[in-house]
Amino acid sequence: MVASEAADTRRPSMPSPSEQLPDLDPGQQAALGEVGRRWGDGIDDPRSWHEALPVDPALDAYPSAVAPSRFGRFVPVAVAVEEADESDEAEETDESERLPTGMGTVRHRVRRALLGHPLRSSAIAHERMRKLIALPVLSADALSSVAYGPEAMLAILVLAGTAGLRNALPIAGAIAVLMLAVGVSYRQTIRAYPNGGGSYIVASGNLGRIPGLFAAAGLLVDYVLTVAVSVSAGVAALTSAVPSLAGSAVPIGLGVIAVLLAGNLRGVRQAGAMFAAPTYAFILAVALLIGFGLADAARHSFHAAAPPHLSVPQSAGVLLILRAFASGATAMTGVEAISDAVPTFHKAEWRNARTTLTIMISLLIVMFVGTVVVLHLSGVVPSGGQTALSQLARRLYGPGLLYGFTQAATAGILLLAANTAFNDFPRVLFYLARDRQAPRMFLRMGDRLAFSNGIVVLAVAAAALYAAFGGKTDPLIPLFAVGVFLAFTLSQAGMVVLWWRERGDRWRRSLACNAVGTVMSGAVFLTAGATKFLEGAWVAVIAVLVFVGLALGIRRYYDRLAAAVELSPDQDQTPQQIRHLSVVPLSVLDRAAMRALAYAASLGQPVLVLHVSPTEEEAERFRDYWRLWGAHLPLEVVVSPYRTTVTPLVGSLESLATRHRGLTLTVIIPEIVVRHWWQALLHDRIASRLRRMLRHLPSVVITSVPFHP
Amino acid sequence: MVASEAADTRRPSMPSPSEQLPDLDPGQQAALGEVGRRWGDGIDDPRSWHEALPVDPALDAYPSAVAPSRFGRFVPVAVAVEEADESDEAEETDESERLPTGMGTVRHRVRRALLGHPLRSSAIAHERMRKLIALPVLSADALSSVAYGPEAMLAILVLAGTAGLRNALPIAGAIAVLMLAVGVSYRQTIRAYPNGGGSYIVASGNLGRIPGLFAAAGLLVDYVLTVAVSVSAGVAALTSAVPSLAGSAVPIGLGVIAVLLAGNLRGVRQAGAMFAAPTYAFILAVALLIGFGLADAARHSFHAAAPPHLSVPQSAGVLLILRAFASGATAMTGVEAISDAVPTFHKAEWRNARTTLTIMISLLIVMFVGTVVVLHLSGVVPSGGQTALSQLARRLYGPGLLYGFTQAATAGILLLAANTAFNDFPRVLFYLARDRQAPRMFLRMGDRLAFSNGIVVLAVAAAALYAAFGGKTDPLIPLFAVGVFLAFTLSQAGMVVLWWRERGDRWRRSLACNAVGTVMSGAVFLTAGATKFLEGAWVAVIAVLVFVGLALGIRRYYDRLAAAVELSPDQDQTPQQIRHLSVVPLSVLDRAAMRALAYAASLGQPVLVLHVSPTEEEAERFRDYWRLWGAHLPLEVVVSPYRTTVTPLVGSLESLATRHRGLTLTVIIPEIVVRHWWQALLHDRIASRLRRMLRHLPSVVITSVPFHP
Repeated sequence: MVASEAADTRRPSMPSPSEQLPDLDPGQQAALGEVGRRWGDGIDDPRSWHEALPVDPALDAYPSAVAPSRFGRFVPVAVAVEEADESDEAEETDESERLPTGMGTVRHRVRRALLGHPLRSSAIAHERMRKLIALPVLSADALSSVAYGPEAMLAILVLAGTAGLRNALPIAGAIAVLMLAVGVSYRQTIRAYPNGGGSYIVASGNLGRIPGLFAAAGLLVDYVLTVAVSVSAGVAALTSAVPSLAGSAVPIGLGVIAVLLAGNLRGVRQAGAMFAAPTYAFILAVALLIGFGLADAARHSFHAAAPPHLSVPQSAGVLLILRAFASGATAMTGVEAISDAVPTFHKAEWRNARTTLTIMISLLIVMFVGTVVVLHLSGVVPSGGQTALSQLARRLYGPGLLYGFTQAATAGILLLAANTAFNDFPRVLFYLARDRQAPRMFLRMGDRLAFSNGIVVLAVAAAALYAAFGGKTDPLIPLFAVGVFLAFTLSQAGMVVLWWRERGDRWRRSLACNAVGTVMSGAVFLTAGATKFLEGAWVAVIAVLVFVGLALGIRRYYDRLAAAVELSPDQDQTPQQIRHLSVVPLSVLDRAAMRALAYAASLGQPVLVLHVSPTEEEAERFRDYWRLWGAHLPLEVVVSPYRTTVTPLVGSLESLATRHRGLTLTVIIPEIVVRHWWQALLHDRIASRLRRMLRHLPSVVITSVPFHP
Repeated sequence: MVASEAADTRRPSMPSPSEQLPDLDPGQQAALGEVGRRWGDGIDDPRSWHEALPVDPALDAYPSAVAPSRFGRFVPVAVAVEEADESDEAEETDESERLPTGMGTVRHRVRRALLGHPLRSSAIAHERMRKLIALPVLSADALSSVAYGPEAMLAILVLAGTAGLRNALPIAGAIAVLMLAVGVSYRQTIRAYPNGGGSYIVASGNLGRIPGLFAAAGLLVDYVLTVAVSVSAGVAALTSAVPSLAGSAVPIGLGVIAVLLAGNLRGVRQAGAMFAAPTYAFILAVALLIGFGLADAARHSFHAAAPPHLSVPQSAGVLLILRAFASGATAMTGVEAISDAVPTFHKAEWRNARTTLTIMISLLIVMFVGTVVVLHLSGVVPSGGQTALSQLARRLYGPGLLYGFTQAATAGILLLAANTAFNDFPRVLFYLARDRQAPRMFLRMGDRLAFSNGIVVLAVAAAALYAAFGGKTDPLIPLFAVGVFLAFTLSQAGMVVLWWRERGDRWRRSLACNAVGTVMSGAVFLTAGATKFLEGAWVAVIAVLVFVGLALGIRRYYDRLAAAVELSPDQDQTPQQIRHLSVVPLSVLDRAAMRALAYAASLGQPVLVLHVSPTEEEAERFRDYWRLWGAHLPLEVVVSPYRTTVTPLVGSLESLATRHRGLTLTVIIPEIVVRHWWQALLHDRIASRLRRMLRHLPSVVITSVPFHP
């Protein structure tokens, strides 16, 4: 198991739409050849099939080769691509609009209006990013945590009043050490996984399937929380500046999630420049806060300002300090983004990626510790109405332009951080689906090259969580650290195993780095899980467990399915072995019935016609009509005294199928196709009920002969 | 039009399940023969089809001849029949339980638990009723109106205080005359329609299709109101006796409707004895009330007791009197039941039916007038909390056993009246559906020989109306008279036309009777519509108009459909003319695909295999596998840069179908059938999406080759 999963690391890690056709292993290839050989056996002239074709198979194919453009999977998409494709797409759009019924067309138009025209697969390309662009693109998630991490930490400490707040700086120091350790640890991952090494890939490749699933579960929970927390913190930045909006925080946040959903379904990917601006703006805003804060503190000779009078419900014990530590550690979410995205760097990729990671971690440490220090010196403590950063900025700048800039930059980076999750969550699901541990639908890229299904799942889950917690950041924090540090721990542990197994160049140093990372992440994971369990971490723990259980069940289902559809030359019939009987169930003798009869007779196989009568009198009438027609085909009339039509038909067919095992029954059903959905109310819909019940019979083939009135 | 509809009167009027196979007119029969002749043309040995059959077509047929039992359509059903059928049904039940998926089985079990085992068609038989049984069975609806008619009338008059109430007796006299006229009029209908002459049949047969629809609409509205009003009046009889239940009138009423729904779906028909008891009890209760009331009044020398002090919001003008008249006339609902049910009488049917009608009308007049007189003499006026009958009974008897008997008998007959509507409403819909003016689903008898669809529609409509009016009787009354008298008027007018057209024995007298009935009913219809329009009659008027519009639309749809499916030997292909091409869309090469390929090849028709690739690379991989298999069949790979699989397939097939008009395309889709609904979430469901889109293409036949993993 471990060995075969490890092979995944050598696969190109980027999602591709080709994954829907699975590779055939050598055994299956041999079986395929054997199946084909047996087919050939009975046929005199194997080319006869090809010559018999009454049409030219040169169908309207799409232009087959499309050159990759400079617009890529992770990159500015492609107003230009859209416009260039306009003419092609217009054709396809027209075609698909002509086909469906009224409802379908409306749905199609709404879809196009919301999402735009479909994009070609070739639009997936990998733009190589300069470090100056890569840094803001990949670090938005991590750096944005500074907006809520320090505050989450202080919110715990303040419960013990001034005595509690005195621990802020030591805890911040400990978190800085943790950041350093995790950063160094991820530098090793980047070297080992030049194709990108997310936690799921590293953990499942080195530790095995189940640890991999736990890592994936941690990541997925983490992304859901990233969206919920980023949106709630972003809305808090807004309502701090404009308090009159505080009452509508939940609707605003849900609106933001809806916009993120629509934007990501449209495939509006994070353009480099679009990301660069708010990230750098936030870095600048925090730098200014720290600078002004320190200057202000210098005027008071760095004596910490007295915090406001506090009620002190708890004492500053070890438990409180651990809880504060776990809350502050949420500032580390998003650190693994760079190790995921190594291939998007310029050459030499891993070296550039490492440099970028180093810069990011340094920035993160400086910004986090700096923020805590300045908050401490200025005596700001979290309070209900306003975020701590907002209080600090207002205290330092007053309510002017600089204050507005700080709040806007904070809201901006948080929005982008949430958007990052919309890219990462579906990608993890894609990897899971590729390993048959998530539904196949997550393999499918939508019209717009986005993994639409995963995006929708994330938006729904995040919106539900956000609404359930009333749009508040604080109560969400306890759920957060569990998932993040579970993924970190398993990923680092996987690296330890990798280094030990390979024992290559400088393996001892790398192993040591990752071992330290593992131990520290693991400690935080256990701390967070234990101290915050009742505060909400249990939700995350249950989500992780449920997810792992589901994934195992799905894998089992797909494995059984794969075994069932595996080619086995002995079990299936060749065309020469198939013996046919066509059965035509008829209720009346009209044109639709005649068409089905003619179709059945023209196949040149034996035909049996079945009619179900509610009464003997009706049966006699039907037989009369049948004789009038000429009784060209064998007819069997079943009198069903219970007036059900479908059950006796299915019963007769089932008994036929049971008594004649070798026979392939083709049930040829005349079906009147209505143009509008409401017209279906005026029909019996026996055809669709029959089809639904017959599907469960073995060796019964179901043929619909549609009639369009 | 009129002539062809008139033929309906000669049809056996009782609903039968055979109606689902329409009679072929001579033109269609000729076409059928011609279609058959052309089929025979190209075939050397016309018996070859019959000899080729690889199976014995002696299928497990149901026992074909079942003798009608003494249990009938309108009669005690058949615990005995159920038990006798137990063994047969057990078989069928087993069979149908084995077939469907988990959900299906649960639904099936719930259905059986609620509704019981299916009943044979032969359970429809016509019990001949003695007059003594027929009277209570058929007059429950009419006589029960005495429970609310007088009160509805007084409730209007009391608005003008004592001056208004003084008009009670003259108005009651006028209504008695009206009852007499309508009764005499219906005696003519009974003679002319020995097979049963409901308003719809008489009006559409003699006046034409649109008047028939208006009569049917009036009847249907009437039945919905009968249920709503009877239930609300019955609940009022209950809450008058037990005032503490008054607050939960609406839930109680809805519960009663639900019980009626379930009972009627079960097909628990009105057993004669079951009906006889409450009807005779109610007749007795009213007789006692009148007797005691008159005796009481005799002690006061028949001076009317002073009514309580009244506020007098309105004056006793003509309008008020007309409104009171229209309200009181609701006591006539249900009078037409006997003329509907002539064939259920002993011979000579029409004579017995007429006698019964005469007795019923006499009873109705006596009970109605007697009740009004006694109410008048005792000075009881309608008041909010209690029904007038309850007040009267309490005043005469005190709160003892006789009072309880009166209330129970009232509630009982009202319940039975509502139940009558559950029999009549679906029957009118059946006639409408037989004339293609209502959806075909109303032709279908359920497992239990009940017209389940019509029963459900009635229950839903009545429950909605009942709830919308807060379970109160008074505001429903203005809606009532319109529908009833519309149907009466059109039915009587139809009789006038019939007599004039036939001019048989004693036609002048009959025509005169019906003419008087027409004029009087019409006058009441106009009075009720005009004076009560704003009070609620507009609801009934709109319902009638909407219904007629819908029925006309449905008839137009069915007429177009019938023209489209009409046999026309020149338009359709004989088996010899059909040219085939089978197309197999494949996404992977597994056992399901191989089975579809083998099936396609074994049909002996040209085959083309289609594969849609999202990328050129995947296309190449597929072609490799194809060659490995031996490339026995022609393959066409379509590269779809937009990753959609279904749209390009449908596009290719559509262009094939368009370019080769004579060709019949059979699309053979391999389809993996899942066992449980949730497993469908783990599959792509391309097959069903493909089928849905392909249905709309002409000359494309869709074949599913199911694979059960």
